[in-house]
Amino acid sequence: MAGVLCVGIATQDFVFGLDAIPTTAEKHRARDLAVVGGGIAANAAVAVARLGARAMLATRLGEDTTARDIVSDLEAEGIDCSLCRRFPGHRSSSSAVLVDARGERMVINYADDTLPADAGWLPPRLPDGIRAVMADTRWEEGGLALFAAARASGGYGVLDADRAVRHPELLSAATHVAWAAQALREATGLQDPREGLAAAAKRADTWMAVTDGGNGVWFTEAGAIAHEPAFPIVPVDTLGAGDVFHGALALGLAEGRDARGAVRFASAAAALKCTRFGGRAGAPTRAEVDAFMNDRTRENG
Amino acid sequence: MAGVLCVGIATQDFVFGLDAIPTTAEKHRARDLAVVGGGIAANAAVAVARLGARAMLATRLGEDTTARDIVSDLEAEGIDCSLCRRFPGHRSSSSAVLVDARGERMVINYADDTLPADAGWLPPRLPDGIRAVMADTRWEEGGLALFAAARASGGYGVLDADRAVRHPELLSAATHVAWAAQALREATGLQDPREGLAAAAKRADTWMAVTDGGNGVWFTEAGAIAHEPAFPIVPVDTLGAGDVFHGALALGLAEGRDARGAVRFASAAAALKCTRFGGRAGAPTRAEVDAFMNDRTRENG
Repeated sequence: MAGVLCVGIATQDFVFGLDAIPTTAEKHRARDLAVVGGGIAANAAVAVARLGARAMLATRLGEDTTARDIVSDLEAEGIDCSLCRRFPGHRSSSSAVLVDARGERMVINYADDTLPADAGWLPPRLPDGIRAVMADTRWEEGGLALFAAARASGGYGVLDADRAVRHPELLSAATHVAWAAQALREATGLQDPREGLAAAAKRADTWMAVTDGGNGVWFTEAGAIAHEPAFPIVPVDTLGAGDVFHGALALGLAEGRDARGAVRFASAAAALKCTRFGGRAGAPTRAEVDAFMNDRTRENG
Repeated sequence: MAGVLCVGIATQDFVFGLDAIPTTAEKHRARDLAVVGGGIAANAAVAVARLGARAMLATRLGEDTTARDIVSDLEAEGIDCSLCRRFPGHRSSSSAVLVDARGERMVINYADDTLPADAGWLPPRLPDGIRAVMADTRWEEGGLALFAAARASGGYGVLDADRAVRHPELLSAATHVAWAAQALREATGLQDPREGLAAAAKRADTWMAVTDGGNGVWFTEAGAIAHEPAFPIVPVDTLGAGDVFHGALALGLAEGRDARGAVRFASAAAALKCTRFGGRAGAPTRAEVDAFMNDRTRENG
C-alpha cells in the first residue's frame, strides 16, 4: 500500500455569502454561511484519502475548538491525524472568506506566527505504508525534516512551491517540485512558464514542474521541458484544485507511476475537482478518476 | 432565589484584528484573532450569572459545531442551557468582526432566517427559581410566550427594544420595556429621548425606559419621566454593555428592587463592563457591583 504523508497547514474557513463585498465599518447581513476545512496540506491529504490511499497529515494547531473541528473533519475523511499536534497557548489558523454574488472573494486569514517552528517531534523515518511526502511552504522546517526521511527510505518528496521559500534548501531536499505559475514568475522574473522552468531547473538537481491551470503542466524530462495538456472541462469552482493536484501527484509517484503518468493522474483529479462546487469537498474518488481518464483516452483514441 | 430566563439570540463571533479594514477582493492577513461568544440574550444571561444569580437561556441554534461551542461557553459561565435547542438542518448564528487599529468595526453577521419561529416547545410556566424574563427582538415568538408565562406567575418581563418589532403586542406583553435611544427615535420620530419616551409610553400600559449611554436612563414613573444619571467612567469597550444592562435590570426587578433601584443597579453593572475590554467577558461580579455602588454613593454623600 502506497500512502502519502502531507505536511503543512490546516485551517477552518468561514465562508460568508453576500450580495456585495462590504467596504464600510458597519453591520452587514450575510445571505449564507458555510464552515469548511481548508489549508494546502490538509486539502492534499483529503485528495489522497478520497483516492482510496493511506493519507496522513503533519500540522501544527492551536489548543482551541478550531483545532478539534479541523481534526474531526479530517478524521471523518479517513485521514490519520496522529501527527496533527496541538500547542497549548497557541491558536489554530482560521479565515473569514467573503464571497459576493459574482464569486469575487475577499479572504481575511489569521495564522499564528508564534507556533514553534521546530520539527524535532516529527518521526525520523516515514511511517509504515507511506511512500511519499507532500509539503506546502507554510511550515518549511516540517517539510525539510520529512523530505529527508523520504529520501532516506527511497521515497518521494513533492513540494508545492506556491510562493517564495525562506529555506532555499527546501527545493533540493524535495525529489519533485511543482511550482504555481505566479510563484515561478516571481522566482525567475520570466513570464513564460517554459522559460521559467528551464531557468529554475538549473538551480536544483530535482524534477520540476509548473502548473498553469487550463494551460496544462510543463515539466522537466530528460534535460528538456515536456508538456501535459489540461483535461478540457468547464470549471465551476477552482478552490482547492491545486491542492488536489499536489496530493494526487505525490500519490501517483508513490504508486509507481513515472513522472508523466503521475502528472496525468493528478491533472485528471484536479480537473474533476474543478467541475464541482465546494472547495475540497469536490475532490474525486479513485473510481471517478479512473472512469474520467478512460473516457478521455477513448475520446482521443 | 431570584433568577432570570433570557430568550433570544446567541452567536459565536470571530474577531479579526487588522491594521485597516480591507476593501479589496484579495487575500488579507490578520494580526490577531479572538473567538468570542455573543448575542444579546446570551450576553444578558452571562451578566446575570456573573452577578451570582440563576441564569437560563432559551435560544434556537443549528445542529453544528458552532452550537456546541456556544453552549459549552455558556455552561462554563454557569448558565442553564436546557432551553438552548438545536434544530437539525439549520445553522447557528455567527459573525466575522473586522477591527482596525483605531477600533473601527465591520461586522458580517449570518443568522438562519429559516429557523422555526414556533415557541410551542417552551415551558408554559416559568421554571423553578426564575422570577423574570429578559427578551431581545431576535425571536419575538419566544419572547411573547415567556412574557405570558412571567405575567401568569406575577413575575417580570423585560424587553430589550433595540429595533422595531414585527409583533407590536410584544411591547404590551412585557412588564418593562427598555428602548435603545436610536430605536426609540425611529419608533416615534422624536429626537429628544424624554419626548420619545412620553410618546411611546402612551401607546402601551407598560413601564418604559430609554438608555442613552453616558447620558443615563430616562424612565416612566408615576405618570412622569424620571432620570437616572450614568455612573461617570472612562469607557474602554462598550461592546455588550447594553446587554449587561438589560440582564441586570431584569435581575434587579426579580430581586425585589423598585424600578428606579433596578435601573441604578443595572447602570452600575453596565458602567463597570464599559471599563473593561473583551465584550461580555468584562461583565462584573456581584461583589464588584456592590463595591462600585458603595464607593460612588460615598463620593456623592
